[in-house]
Amino acid sequence: MAPRSIIIDTDPGQDDAIAILLALASEEFQVLGLTAVAGNVPLALTEANARKICELAGRPETKVFAGCARPLVRSLVTAEEVHGKTGLDGPELPAPTMPLQEGHAVDWIVDTLRAAPAGSITLCTLGPLTNIATAMVKAPDIVPRIAEIVMMGGAYFEVGNVTPTAEFNIYVDPHAAHVVFTSGVKMTMHPLDVTHKALMTRAWIDSLRALGSATGQAAAAMLDFYERFDMEKYGEAGGPLHDPCVIAYLLQPELFRGRDCNVAIETRSDLTMGMTVVDWWGVTDRPANCHVINQIDAEGFYELIRSRLARLP
Amino acid sequence: MAPRSIIIDTDPGQDDAIAILLALASEEFQVLGLTAVAGNVPLALTEANARKICELAGRPETKVFAGCARPLVRSLVTAEEVHGKTGLDGPELPAPTMPLQEGHAVDWIVDTLRAAPAGSITLCTLGPLTNIATAMVKAPDIVPRIAEIVMMGGAYFEVGNVTPTAEFNIYVDPHAAHVVFTSGVKMTMHPLDVTHKALMTRAWIDSLRALGSATGQAAAAMLDFYERFDMEKYGEAGGPLHDPCVIAYLLQPELFRGRDCNVAIETRSDLTMGMTVVDWWGVTDRPANCHVINQIDAEGFYELIRSRLARLP
Amino acid sequence: MAPRSIIIDTDPGQDDAIAILLALASEEFQVLGLTAVAGNVPLALTEANARKICELAGRPETKVFAGCARPLVRSLVTAEEVHGKTGLDGPELPAPTMPLQEGHAVDWIVDTLRAAPAGSITLCTLGPLTNIATAMVKAPDIVPRIAEIVMMGGAYFEVGNVTPTAEFNIYVDPHAAHVVFTSGVKMTMHPLDVTHKALMTRAWIDSLRALGSATGQAAAAMLDFYERFDMEKYGEAGGPLHDPCVIAYLLQPELFRGRDCNVAIETRSDLTMGMTVVDWWGVTDRPANCHVINQIDAEGFYELIRSRLARLP
Amino acid sequence: MAPRSIIIDTDPGQDDAIAILLALASEEFQVLGLTAVAGNVPLALTEANARKICELAGRPETKVFAGCARPLVRSLVTAEEVHGKTGLDGPELPAPTMPLQEGHAVDWIVDTLRAAPAGSITLCTLGPLTNIATAMVKAPDIVPRIAEIVMMGGAYFEVGNVTPTAEFNIYVDPHAAHVVFTSGVKMTMHPLDVTHKALMTRAWIDSLRALGSATGQAAAAMLDFYERFDMEKYGEAGGPLHDPCVIAYLLQPELFRGRDCNVAIETRSDLTMGMTVVDWWGVTDRPANCHVINQIDAEGFYELIRSRLARLP
Repeated sequence: MAPRSIIIDTDPGQDDAIAILLALASEEFQVLGLTAVAGNVPLALTEANARKICELAGRPETKVFAGCARPLVRSLVTAEEVHGKTGLDGPELPAPTMPLQEGHAVDWIVDTLRAAPAGSITLCTLGPLTNIATAMVKAPDIVPRIAEIVMMGGAYFEVGNVTPTAEFNIYVDPHAAHVVFTSGVKMTMHPLDVTHKALMTRAWIDSLRALGSATGQAAAAMLDFYERFDMEKYGEAGGPLHDPCVIAYLLQPELFRGRDCNVAIETRSDLTMGMTVVDWWGVTDRPANCHVINQIDAEGFYELIRSRLARLP
Repeated sequence: MAPRSIIIDTDPGQDDAIAILLALASEEFQVLGLTAVAGNVPLALTEANARKICELAGRPETKVFAGCARPLVRSLVTAEEVHGKTGLDGPELPAPTMPLQEGHAVDWIVDTLRAAPAGSITLCTLGPLTNIATAMVKAPDIVPRIAEIVMMGGAYFEVGNVTPTAEFNIYVDPHAAHVVFTSGVKMTMHPLDVTHKALMTRAWIDSLRALGSATGQAAAAMLDFYERFDMEKYGEAGGPLHDPCVIAYLLQPELFRGRDCNVAIETRSDLTMGMTVVDWWGVTDRPANCHVINQIDAEGFYELIRSRLARLP
Repeated sequence: MAPRSIIIDTDPGQDDAIAILLALASEEFQVLGLTAVAGNVPLALTEANARKICELAGRPETKVFAGCARPLVRSLVTAEEVHGKTGLDGPELPAPTMPLQEGHAVDWIVDTLRAAPAGSITLCTLGPLTNIATAMVKAPDIVPRIAEIVMMGGAYFEVGNVTPTAEFNIYVDPHAAHVVFTSGVKMTMHPLDVTHKALMTRAWIDSLRALGSATGQAAAAMLDFYERFDMEKYGEAGGPLHDPCVIAYLLQPELFRGRDCNVAIETRSDLTMGMTVVDWWGVTDRPANCHVINQIDAEGFYELIRSRLARLP
Repeated sequence: MAPRSIIIDTDPGQDDAIAILLALASEEFQVLGLTAVAGNVPLALTEANARKICELAGRPETKVFAGCARPLVRSLVTAEEVHGKTGLDGPELPAPTMPLQEGHAVDWIVDTLRAAPAGSITLCTLGPLTNIATAMVKAPDIVPRIAEIVMMGGAYFEVGNVTPTAEFNIYVDPHAAHVVFTSGVKMTMHPLDVTHKALMTRAWIDSLRALGSATGQAAAAMLDFYERFDMEKYGEAGGPLHDPCVIAYLLQPELFRGRDCNVAIETRSDLTMGMTVVDWWGVTDRPANCHVINQIDAEGFYELIRSRLARLP
């Protein structure tokens, strides 16, 4: 079977980093490129972090593009309190030497979708949806060319993390999320509802370190730093690992379960801004526009990551 | 210990009925009166239903007042699909012969609070908060005289029932809820989060029928009708029994657990109108204004109801 | 012709004062009572000011009731920068000796409307619509009994005064305005569009003083103080005199011209909160619910006031 | 003096057409290019119309780019009831033979601003601000390179045209307007307040026809069609001619007068969506971000257009 062509839109972020490593380690994918967006930290950091991760994985030939430095409508909000000042706090990673690609991520997404057969490219989004929405606004003809968008973002029963009702990726750019969710593209969403059902364990992080590789060491150092925030907040023994769900879902969908629902994005009220309103129980007449994941085989998920990262240098 | 003076504000409703029966059966309370409000069904039905329940309990001397027939700002929404056309579908209850009290529920609430020692009366609210908010708007001096408001309403992790984000009581009158939650009164909220953790069983409903009393028969018939809706919707073996939580909490608080949180009411956006935004994880700097219940000893709860209803004729 | 029965709902305010004096001086009216509401200044001042004005007019037998001390949903905003600390700054008026009526203004409005023949009482509203809306929420049966509501409030082409889009009376309680404008009652609105077309002149204020009466002296002193604010703001030679338009319209409707329009109240957005959205050009399909006045015979208006105030002691 | 470099962003539209003709006829400008956007009619028509107008003016070498086919967040609304099915109803203009430039208008705007000296290019916007906002979101570095934005759009005292509170250009894409008005760029706005103060006369339209040129004939035919809509709506003897104000202002600013104000865009409420909230009287503490034009020398304005159009073939 031919590898699946994917574009990873990302704002690394330690959990983005693990997701990217998982994708680069998996022969099931042809990673056409990474497109960086402002989110967890500003764009100058996220694009550099994306390149650092490619180099860590021994894949400096991977194309990395810089995209939008600010959300569609609102001002940028970042999350250094979670990810540290660099966005990748934890390990000491060298400054990247591989080049940032010329051109804007939005243009490259548009051009790449237009050049490839319709329905042949899957978008994996790990951050705010600014790049994707800007591409859709600028070039609506790409919309029917996208095979599928698999995203990390949103929350429903698990409500929010950055506010009482909003998850960070959607909160940063709710208008972009609105554009994407109303586009008609086939969508799968990994909200906090699923990611909070698969908490990291100390043993698992140690098992990454025990891989003995540079990647394993760096991944473990990242996650030590990263999970601290959620453990303190939720008082759990381990933190969730959001973004790799997107990649794992494409590798082993049988690890996940969800439901087709309508998802609408709150863009009007300050109190609930950025909420992903999921009609889980079908109490409205709004048609389903998203497959919403809420169940995960945590053991399988973590073993998949570990075993794939073991392939990296 | 002297009985606790309570006013029950209610829109019966089968689960209101069980709550009222539980209160009337409990010597721990002096039920100063029932105040009816439009909600599950229009006011003309809720006030008649309140009287039917008092007569069923053999307590025709209970004062019942009619209150507001419409919400503070929005148009009335009712829920006949849940409660049936009468609001008390299930048993055949005779038309009430006890009188409706003269005067408006709002005025009686104001006068009663003013006449009693400050802090001596607890308000138990089982429906939309229209009567309470109207009393507060009309007579702000009553606010510091209220000992506590214990309410059924809202939802957080369990999100909504009438919309994807709103619970019925708050959705019907979100502006009234806003007035009450910003009043400064001591509040305890029983949201869907707790009520959905205590589903009725067939055996328990049968145990009411087995009481052999008129009340037991009628209660069982009500609940047979009532739980059908939620069982079909959620696919569970039994339905939740919302309103009695309020009364049970005052009788046996040890059956419940919760957390002091800020609760804010969405009144701006159509998409999320009536949501109770609970800052459960303390991610905002809004101060706590409500004790939010989310845990219940279901077995203890149902046994409390059964044993108390056994005292009624 | 029998005098028209009116209730004046008011938050005096110097312009309220002139309106009340105009009404009390006119045998065309039977002033059933004044109902005070919080607005320009807090309720304790507005009800006292209402009594001061009755005494100034030599009409201490006039019934004055205190109503709502706070808006329906929002917190109270007042306008001491316009009206001075007392709300009636300018003249030295003695503390009132006539009594405040017992009972709440809202209850008296309800009882009075119920007791009189349907359609026989006109409500003249000079302040926020809190009392009227609370009466409608508490007792919806009064709605069809109201002959007409003639109100001062709102703005359209003249936009706002307290914010760029909202006039003070509506801004203070937009939810109450929404209740009233959606009630179905026959309504006539005097917005800033009309009041700003009839600015006071120095000569006219002097003509009040020249009446030689206590009322004339006090009225002139009030208006000297009152118009200062608008003259400084708008850089005009004179200020508008809002509230008397309501009374003058009932006395001499031929002084005014307007159009039947739909008026909707903004209650959702902070930016435009309290705007009266008038569909003057009929670009929506919302049906007309208000006669919106936008033209006035300024000379006739001011001469009417002067000549009627001349009758007072 | 060197000609001023301008980019005209436009959705022709008959009044856009006159504005473009006025610019092309004026040696004070170097028209770097026209960028079409969806608005009055869909993009496929507005870009073709832009080319038709260049050919009519004998300027087929003018660069015309196609931009965004949809607003930033909302769905597209068009105005065929005003402009006719083609957007340029009235004259029979041949299908354009000059080419549409390759590349997207947004990219060309970005590239052109980056290539020119900072502060050397003025943007003249005659339609929804989608292209400009998308450029700002995609490439925030261009913001300080823009000399000035002179725009037609919005309404304040003249309220709205497409809704009771919104002017068409802003209503179509309020989020884009928000991005532009909060960007910090120097802005001048020509709202309905100014355009409705300069109505066309029959004599003036006839004077265009009397020019004897193809341009004069076509312009007169366009305006005959175009003004019909507003004349019927407002019952005036002539219609306003909105978009040419932008170009005339750059040619002869002495024809116009305005005030520096804060302008904020309503993006939250359906009722007032797209309103330009102008703090004309300085009642908020929001800083001025726009020069808002509200006065025009109508005679000078129309004579300027006529005399310049007389230069065209």
